[in-house]
Amino acid sequence: MQVLHMNKGNGDTSYAKNSTVQSKIISVGKPIMKEAVLEMLCNNVIESMGIADLGCSSGPNSLSVISEIMDTVEAANRLLGRRLVSEFRVFLNDLYSNDFNNIFMSLPAFYDRLKEEKGLEFESCFILGAPGSFYGRLFPTNSLHFVHSSSSLHWLSQVPAGLESNALKRLNKGKLYISKSSPQSVVDAYLLQFRNDFSLFIKSRSRELVAGGRMVLSFMGRSSTDPTTENSCYQWELLAQAIMSLAREGRIEEEKLDSFNAPYYAPCAEEIKDEIQKEGSFTIDRLEAFEIDWDGGAVTDTHTPHGKLSVGRRVAKAIRAVVESMLESHFGIEPDVMDDLFIRYGDIVGTHLSKSRTKYINLVMALTKKW
Amino acid sequence: MQVLHMNKGNGDTSYAKNSTVQSKIISVGKPIMKEAVLEMLCNNVIESMGIADLGCSSGPNSLSVISEIMDTVEAANRLLGRRLVSEFRVFLNDLYSNDFNNIFMSLPAFYDRLKEEKGLEFESCFILGAPGSFYGRLFPTNSLHFVHSSSSLHWLSQVPAGLESNALKRLNKGKLYISKSSPQSVVDAYLLQFRNDFSLFIKSRSRELVAGGRMVLSFMGRSSTDPTTENSCYQWELLAQAIMSLAREGRIEEEKLDSFNAPYYAPCAEEIKDEIQKEGSFTIDRLEAFEIDWDGGAVTDTHTPHGKLSVGRRVAKAIRAVVESMLESHFGIEPDVMDDLFIRYGDIVGTHLSKSRTKYINLVMALTKKW
Repeated sequence: MQVLHMNKGNGDTSYAKNSTVQSKIISVGKPIMKEAVLEMLCNNVIESMGIADLGCSSGPNSLSVISEIMDTVEAANRLLGRRLVSEFRVFLNDLYSNDFNNIFMSLPAFYDRLKEEKGLEFESCFILGAPGSFYGRLFPTNSLHFVHSSSSLHWLSQVPAGLESNALKRLNKGKLYISKSSPQSVVDAYLLQFRNDFSLFIKSRSRELVAGGRMVLSFMGRSSTDPTTENSCYQWELLAQAIMSLAREGRIEEEKLDSFNAPYYAPCAEEIKDEIQKEGSFTIDRLEAFEIDWDGGAVTDTHTPHGKLSVGRRVAKAIRAVVESMLESHFGIEPDVMDDLFIRYGDIVGTHLSKSRTKYINLVMALTKKW
Repeated sequence: MQVLHMNKGNGDTSYAKNSTVQSKIISVGKPIMKEAVLEMLCNNVIESMGIADLGCSSGPNSLSVISEIMDTVEAANRLLGRRLVSEFRVFLNDLYSNDFNNIFMSLPAFYDRLKEEKGLEFESCFILGAPGSFYGRLFPTNSLHFVHSSSSLHWLSQVPAGLESNALKRLNKGKLYISKSSPQSVVDAYLLQFRNDFSLFIKSRSRELVAGGRMVLSFMGRSSTDPTTENSCYQWELLAQAIMSLAREGRIEEEKLDSFNAPYYAPCAEEIKDEIQKEGSFTIDRLEAFEIDWDGGAVTDTHTPHGKLSVGRRVAKAIRAVVESMLESHFGIEPDVMDDLFIRYGDIVGTHLSKSRTKYINLVMALTKKW
């Protein structure tokens, strides 16, 4: 929790400049999000609407979701000919180490746009930063109407118990995440950590949302029950290969690779449903899976050498913006080795994608807090 | 508003490392703050207490006020043998360009301390960032119980009308703020800007505070009605001298000095009372003036050459941490010229303080929102 954050600032390796995949994921989930907002407006009288975006990160995506939600409310206003919500309380959440300064600096322009495009006065929209882990309480009881989270809940609160870097036994040597060759104990440890984290998430939000409130969650998952399918873990498999190739040259300690396991889990629909039903206060309105290209679906011919290279590089930059803080903290890699690692990773990814069409599976679900 | 911010980070010239004066100001206002919190607790039933610190900046002072307020509530709990407030909603406000990242990184340790010292669970205290100008609405209607602001309200929302850098006439040549030699039009422009800003502040807070809610404000002012007394403006007079001496050497453009006027005003008690009474929704419970040493009251003998130098340097560093962003933006000064400016300023201040005991006047007031 103290370590994970997207790359800060606006530079070439920043998350702000390399978040096309996450933006694509937001856009495929948009119809489900709009439907949930509209249904909620039809069934509730809301004076002051509390909206939280959990894991907002920083960069262009941070405010785009908020903007979409407000657009939807506005469209409903027009449709019904009256103002359904008179005040928005918007909470942007991410971990303490997130680059909130970057988001806050973009707020004056955002407020100006609200005023211009939607005629909303500053006084009717209050945007706040809510730093902390969403695996636990973040907001007062019954204070929220709509919770959104995209590309965040695949991050666990910690490396699964037994797989930490100081664990006595190295159970997952040469790998960063669940792999075809991982023993069952590794798979079990990951699932257990996911169950614990996700149920705490659901329980916390259940306290914070009003009855009838909605939650739209979207994160990496898998469509098969088998957690070792390429679509759910191959980006880690290839990253491990790139690290291993540097280890073979003595530029990264191999032991460091053996002792690292990513605090990440791509669940299947059943695992998610289980936890939601066990907790009991939400109904599942929708749960859908979408295939997402590793580079967010930019149009490139992966069969020419140039196309192969550029798609690999884009994927490598996107992954780097997300995992660099973790790798830096665990491996203690020098900047030039880090650069080399992701050049190598880009090549490996490019070669892989020219032979195989591995995709991410993104799960999107809409939940309603029961009355 | 887009330019003013305290120096970021934790370095030698940072605000975090040079805010002893502001810390001293918080501590002289503490008894008044405690009294206001206690009185409010006695007269109100509060389930979820909304607290805002306006102009929180970053560094050690940002959370110390919050800590004090919570200590006071806890002392009242013990006194009365029951929990008076079951939930705290804490809003830290400052301008969009404030270093919120720095504050947020210190929250995990702050929450740990709350738990250890006060036995408060994480679930009962929600700390949020509320970026924006306090000259206007920041929070939903009737959402706050206690508003605190220290060392912030002497900053105006803008340079007074007619004194901006692009104004046709240079009304305040060679000065940065009101000076003995300033024409009446300059004094009038400053007072008008203060009246507009402060009345907007009071009006906005009046909407946000519940009836019976309290506000403790503390900022630079003056004890005389004359706005040109040394105690209210001499720190600017000496800074203008330092800039002028660099201008004479051709290292700063003199025209730039002529076109700069600080967005700052040190009001007297009458000017403040006027605006509060005009607005009409607050009663003034207290309004007191305190003398504060320019260096925050560190024990130094200003009569020895060494003591004189060190007090001057400390004052220069404290002022630099606050005004550097403004000077940089207006004068476009190179880092080495900036360093020289504040060395020179430190010498001038040291010499001045060895002959005169000029102090800051800090005004502290406690207000209650009428029922």
